[in-house]
Amino acid sequence: MLFTLAELQKLIPDSEVRNSEKPDEIKFQSIGSLDSSNTDFISFIANKTNLKDAKKSKALGLITNSELASEFTIPVLVVPNVDLGLIAILNYLFPPNKPDGIISKTAIIHPTAKIGEGSTIGDYVTIGANSSVGKNSILEDGVKIATNVKIGDNARIGMNCVFHKDTQIGNNFIVFGNSTFGGDGFRFSTIKGIHHKIPQVGRVIIGDDVEIGSNCAVDRGGLEDTVIGNGCKFDNMVHIGHNVKIGNNVIIAGQSGVAGSTTIGNDVLIAGACAISDHLELMDGTVVAGGTGLRTSPKEKNVYIGWDWGMTFAEFQKARVNIKHLIGFNKWASRIKTLEKKLGIVAEE
Amino acid sequence: MLFTLAELQKLIPDSEVRNSEKPDEIKFQSIGSLDSSNTDFISFIANKTNLKDAKKSKALGLITNSELASEFTIPVLVVPNVDLGLIAILNYLFPPNKPDGIISKTAIIHPTAKIGEGSTIGDYVTIGANSSVGKNSILEDGVKIATNVKIGDNARIGMNCVFHKDTQIGNNFIVFGNSTFGGDGFRFSTIKGIHHKIPQVGRVIIGDDVEIGSNCAVDRGGLEDTVIGNGCKFDNMVHIGHNVKIGNNVIIAGQSGVAGSTTIGNDVLIAGACAISDHLELMDGTVVAGGTGLRTSPKEKNVYIGWDWGMTFAEFQKARVNIKHLIGFNKWASRIKTLEKKLGIVAEE
Amino acid sequence: MLFTLAELQKLIPDSEVRNSEKPDEIKFQSIGSLDSSNTDFISFIANKTNLKDAKKSKALGLITNSELASEFTIPVLVVPNVDLGLIAILNYLFPPNKPDGIISKTAIIHPTAKIGEGSTIGDYVTIGANSSVGKNSILEDGVKIATNVKIGDNARIGMNCVFHKDTQIGNNFIVFGNSTFGGDGFRFSTIKGIHHKIPQVGRVIIGDDVEIGSNCAVDRGGLEDTVIGNGCKFDNMVHIGHNVKIGNNVIIAGQSGVAGSTTIGNDVLIAGACAISDHLELMDGTVVAGGTGLRTSPKEKNVYIGWDWGMTFAEFQKARVNIKHLIGFNKWASRIKTLEKKLGIVAEE
Repeated sequence: MLFTLAELQKLIPDSEVRNSEKPDEIKFQSIGSLDSSNTDFISFIANKTNLKDAKKSKALGLITNSELASEFTIPVLVVPNVDLGLIAILNYLFPPNKPDGIISKTAIIHPTAKIGEGSTIGDYVTIGANSSVGKNSILEDGVKIATNVKIGDNARIGMNCVFHKDTQIGNNFIVFGNSTFGGDGFRFSTIKGIHHKIPQVGRVIIGDDVEIGSNCAVDRGGLEDTVIGNGCKFDNMVHIGHNVKIGNNVIIAGQSGVAGSTTIGNDVLIAGACAISDHLELMDGTVVAGGTGLRTSPKEKNVYIGWDWGMTFAEFQKARVNIKHLIGFNKWASRIKTLEKKLGIVAEE
Repeated sequence: MLFTLAELQKLIPDSEVRNSEKPDEIKFQSIGSLDSSNTDFISFIANKTNLKDAKKSKALGLITNSELASEFTIPVLVVPNVDLGLIAILNYLFPPNKPDGIISKTAIIHPTAKIGEGSTIGDYVTIGANSSVGKNSILEDGVKIATNVKIGDNARIGMNCVFHKDTQIGNNFIVFGNSTFGGDGFRFSTIKGIHHKIPQVGRVIIGDDVEIGSNCAVDRGGLEDTVIGNGCKFDNMVHIGHNVKIGNNVIIAGQSGVAGSTTIGNDVLIAGACAISDHLELMDGTVVAGGTGLRTSPKEKNVYIGWDWGMTFAEFQKARVNIKHLIGFNKWASRIKTLEKKLGIVAEE
Repeated sequence: MLFTLAELQKLIPDSEVRNSEKPDEIKFQSIGSLDSSNTDFISFIANKTNLKDAKKSKALGLITNSELASEFTIPVLVVPNVDLGLIAILNYLFPPNKPDGIISKTAIIHPTAKIGEGSTIGDYVTIGANSSVGKNSILEDGVKIATNVKIGDNARIGMNCVFHKDTQIGNNFIVFGNSTFGGDGFRFSTIKGIHHKIPQVGRVIIGDDVEIGSNCAVDRGGLEDTVIGNGCKFDNMVHIGHNVKIGNNVIIAGQSGVAGSTTIGNDVLIAGACAISDHLELMDGTVVAGGTGLRTSPKEKNVYIGWDWGMTFAEFQKARVNIKHLIGFNKWASRIKTLEKKLGIVAEE
């Protein structure tokens, strides 16, 4: 693959080439980060923080914005937004798989199930009664869909994903391998030591434009539904318990989990390895830093961090400094005892 | 689906309708929680805590017990145990899938494998040599069973679950999609920097009446077996290491893990996002609160909580209050220094 | 299965039988740990720590080294290295599955894909265009391999594992059920509240002699590759983010995760339930104790432990002792106040 600045410039409206008289003559072999060890590559820079790295980079050219363009003498492609420009360029250089409308002969599709026009159904897929897949979707090999499942248009469903019955998913859904939707919620009534299963008859309802990683699990609701809003993005191994309600544009990073019946507002960011307890409420815009366990509902919109203590980020920063006092507290204790002795105070131990 | 109080009353021995002259005339459309936004729904209340919500509920009727029944003037179905009543009603209104004795033509079953009467074997299931499935079980599509595996009667095996060789499972087993049983335990001998694999030749042995969620992994034993007792219930993404021994009726919630060779007694409750270290022992009835890391065996039956510190719940509650002192400890430190200065004490820093 | 000391002795070069005149006459029924409840079993002991247990053991014979052999009067097999001896014996008694060169008729292999000599391809496996599997490999039932994937010689791929496109794996790879390789990395650009997906066009590159457990997920790189070196061993439910670079012989235990763009040196040991944050660097030989969250790059090679505080193990041990002061800090606070009162000091609260 060889490509030119002129070629890239055409992809992006309102973009402009600078520092190059002949933008169709420089041939790039690849696109890479600023410190890439590739040869003949183009790179990109979106903000000043990376200016030093950009100036040291061996890139033959750069994608950048008008604010930074004047910093460089090598050929640059000036774009209105570097991230959006990069997305357009990457999709051009590495075109994603497109649906071809072919339904594998090994796909077993119930007569009552419906497949929208243009969708690809891979090998060894099964689709149960009353289920449907929208238009231009791709179900990769081995996907298993039970009964009464609805998947929208333009879906990209990774290999061996599992959809238990009644799961309902909007348009433009993306998910990678081995994720599971609609398994029963975790609810038992313990009577005389025996755990009796409470039937889980709610559904999983997922909005539009949602992306979910590999090996995730989203449970169906108990009586009402588990709901995930539009535009949410979840990383790998995210666990969502029953009856959880998640707003729009929520991000949850890898190995984080949300326990049953918790409500999460819009635009919440939960970083990796977090555990959000059950029956909590997180306001719109709440941020939960990586490796945080929330046991109680935060009282305000803020940045939360830290296992066990439910601190705001500001408190955590202080606690982190003071942890050295905790490590050496026995010294402080003996200083207090010395003071008491000097003053003849007998304290209760 | 429309149903009446009279219909529900017949499901539950020793139940009784009150506040309704004609229990076969009120038509319910659905069953919901007290604050459900459904229309024409019946709800339920099992204890006084929810009395306020119940009185505000828009439910047309309630399932409750004799203790609470007199609180209401709307039609109630009085049952001996609300949870058990609810289970009976949900199973009536939402009948679970039943095995139909049909073995898919696409299931590949080794000639030496045995399938019990009445069991359903889904599409693209494979069952290896010397394996067996009991009576009235359902293996959903894509389940893969290796050699010498035994699964009991009345199993419900979720799509794409994997059973590595030698796994032995009792009756009434339930598991949801993409869980894995019998992968090798994690054991290497490191000699001159190279990690040599110790063959894992024990089995996974699971008792009766066990339910396991989606995307779980239970490892086979090293020399002896990994054992899970009767009546255990595990949520999604639970990880059980090799040689772990788990008693009866143990509950483990989502994303918790038990490392190798740990022994867990009966009736233990491990909430979500817990990490139980290897070679520990947890007594019968131990409770481990969510987000707890246990590094050492608890010395008594108690409620444990908290990363790193191995506190009892009572200690944790105190520590939580005192964390504010840690956050502001530099103030306390300067107060101690002021005292020392006043008394002319020179302390070692 | 019955076996004799003489039989085992032949398996291991430079081994020797002691305390038995007729090493081909004692029949063992099984091999077990020192406290096994098996009958007629042989056990093993590699170091003095277990001497007491070994002397109490009901084993009919022991595998041990020349240093410990003289401690016993029962028949012993003296071997140069007990672990390596045990490995040889277990592989003899429990021979692992061997590839038989049979390609299932239900495997769907693209005409451009290549399968090496002697490899077993299980039922309902699919292999996409331009992918290849080396010699003497086993792909168990239901494995799904997309396009342009390369798997080396002697692989053992567990049932229902998923390989997204472009994944490249060396020789002697082992992985158990339901693991996923090459799903997209987790990267979005948020513009006016909308999360725009940054295409992930790097690959997963895994070296030789790597073993990975069940239900793991390794993401492809963003622009460059996600790289795992030779000899690495990962347990179940390990999550590796995009662009992570992992050196050789790294061990990562169950439910630990490494977030995007972190670099991990050689011979690093990460125990279970750890969260390693993004863009960190861990030097060769670093040890991260179980249940540790690393938020910053450690400044030296050391043993790290503890959520939130980033302590060395030595600091953690002190902090653990002093936690009791934190629990009871309100008492210390009132002792300080008493001192201030006595001296007439008015401190700012």
